[in-house]
Amino acid sequence: MNAASLPCPADVLAAAARIAPHATVTPVLQSRQLDALAGARLHFKAEHLQRGGAFKFRGACNAVWGLDAAQAAAGVVTHSSGNHGAALALAARTRGIACHVVVPEGAVAAKLANIARHGATLWQCAPTIAAREATCAQVQADTGATLVHPYADAAVIAGQGTAALELLGQAGALDVLVVPAGGGGLASGTALALQHAAPGTRLVLAEPAGAADTARSLAAGERQIDFVPDTVCDGLRGTLGQPNFELLQQAGVEVIVVDDAATVAAMRLLWEVLKQVVEPSSAITLAAVLAQPARFAGQRVGLVLSGGNVDLDALPWARA
Amino acid sequence: MNAASLPCPADVLAAAARIAPHATVTPVLQSRQLDALAGARLHFKAEHLQRGGAFKFRGACNAVWGLDAAQAAAGVVTHSSGNHGAALALAARTRGIACHVVVPEGAVAAKLANIARHGATLWQCAPTIAAREATCAQVQADTGATLVHPYADAAVIAGQGTAALELLGQAGALDVLVVPAGGGGLASGTALALQHAAPGTRLVLAEPAGAADTARSLAAGERQIDFVPDTVCDGLRGTLGQPNFELLQQAGVEVIVVDDAATVAAMRLLWEVLKQVVEPSSAITLAAVLAQPARFAGQRVGLVLSGGNVDLDALPWARA
Repeated sequence: MNAASLPCPADVLAAAARIAPHATVTPVLQSRQLDALAGARLHFKAEHLQRGGAFKFRGACNAVWGLDAAQAAAGVVTHSSGNHGAALALAARTRGIACHVVVPEGAVAAKLANIARHGATLWQCAPTIAAREATCAQVQADTGATLVHPYADAAVIAGQGTAALELLGQAGALDVLVVPAGGGGLASGTALALQHAAPGTRLVLAEPAGAADTARSLAAGERQIDFVPDTVCDGLRGTLGQPNFELLQQAGVEVIVVDDAATVAAMRLLWEVLKQVVEPSSAITLAAVLAQPARFAGQRVGLVLSGGNVDLDALPWARA
Repeated sequence: MNAASLPCPADVLAAAARIAPHATVTPVLQSRQLDALAGARLHFKAEHLQRGGAFKFRGACNAVWGLDAAQAAAGVVTHSSGNHGAALALAARTRGIACHVVVPEGAVAAKLANIARHGATLWQCAPTIAAREATCAQVQADTGATLVHPYADAAVIAGQGTAALELLGQAGALDVLVVPAGGGGLASGTALALQHAAPGTRLVLAEPAGAADTARSLAAGERQIDFVPDTVCDGLRGTLGQPNFELLQQAGVEVIVVDDAATVAAMRLLWEVLKQVVEPSSAITLAAVLAQPARFAGQRVGLVLSGGNVDLDALPWARA
């Protein structure tokens, strides 16, 4: 397996073994009240309780520990001011190797501080894709660091699939599994996990209406990534990756497109009823189930709560 | 055992068996980041994930299921517009019996709706202790319902102690256990549980400076309950009960008095780092540990997160 090839179900099993010494086995949470509301049995996989506060640690950890000794000695590099940057920094620290994170000027200070806290070196660049890629390439040339893309990377995809594997082991058989769709790392990794462990379980992607490139791409049969994201789900603004698209197309997934208002309402429910601090990108899974109840009625449903990194001073329901 | 006598450690064991079919076995949560901050190994007992959103269900459930058939047929009554009212309503529903809750005029509508949602009958009275007791007595006279006091009740105390029993089974040996002190139901029940299961484990009570009647009562050797509570910890404004005082005095507990500012800061930490929606009355336990780190350094510490019923539109750190 390398970053350019497509991962397969066996890679998810290998990833689970590789990250086991480092990752948290996150709990599965349930609520009678939310079950009653949804008319289904909901099993929330609490990846916001994963190290770093998001499932992203799984993929980053698999990538870092999959490097050979010579690669590892040169460190890793990525471009992400969000959960993946912090996750890669944390994963690199578990192996004691260098981590470089390229971040755009103007990124949220709290997120940068979080990445720096885990020991990564930050490289600022202009807030354009061209500047980001040029800076990344420069760091790679200067240091020999391996690029770990946030989602279009075989090791990252395989690592993200371990969340679903773990959930199936904890919750037992599920009729359907709902995960958020952003760049497609979690979605495609989950598809691989189901292929191995639960081929009868449907995979439903929850995607924000303001960044519905996965829904459009799957409908068109080719990637449709020319758009400007507009959604409260800051973790789902990335554009669908090519390997991710191919894996999702092969898997035959369903997509439910969700309005931000429904996501914010679901987020508030998860805070009030499940008592969990989750970000909008997590809540979109519950919003999808509540938006189309007929597709889940009476079923055993898994939902991945992908992360819990939110700004407590800017809660979406408090916005004017 | 009856409501007037003092419960003993065996009553906590009996309570655990009695409520097992109805109560949730709540998880124990940990955080490397909070451990580093505290310089100790923290084990958070997540009672905010208990049915009804607070440990109160344990005591209410034990009281309801401890009634004989004739008592049960007449139902239960209490006066509480907070977590105990909702917990008793929920517990009564598990046995299919009537529940009457006396609430003061002007109580928070959301809390009353929560009690009513669980099927209880609400009785409004003037917001004075005299009116509350008169209304309660009237309901008892009219219906024959058994009074279940929020904390000065042997069955309630024994039920609350089951949280500590369960925590010890999950986390293993602890050097110290920290619980919030309000009326003393959880505190005295926990003292009984430790007496049975872990006599070497210290019990530390965390009490708000604006309602420090337990600290004052234990120092004085008699109940000191003539005060007007002034604290953000709305669950800890009750005055220490007589049986609760006696049990705590026998147990030789420590008390740490905590300022509201420290509690609010700890609450924010629990939201941001542990990703849990807990109320101030829960967060005061972490605040106590962080306020006096020398008393916990390097130790295995249990902390009971007592509840998670908060108003998301009025978060304490957002107050002007």
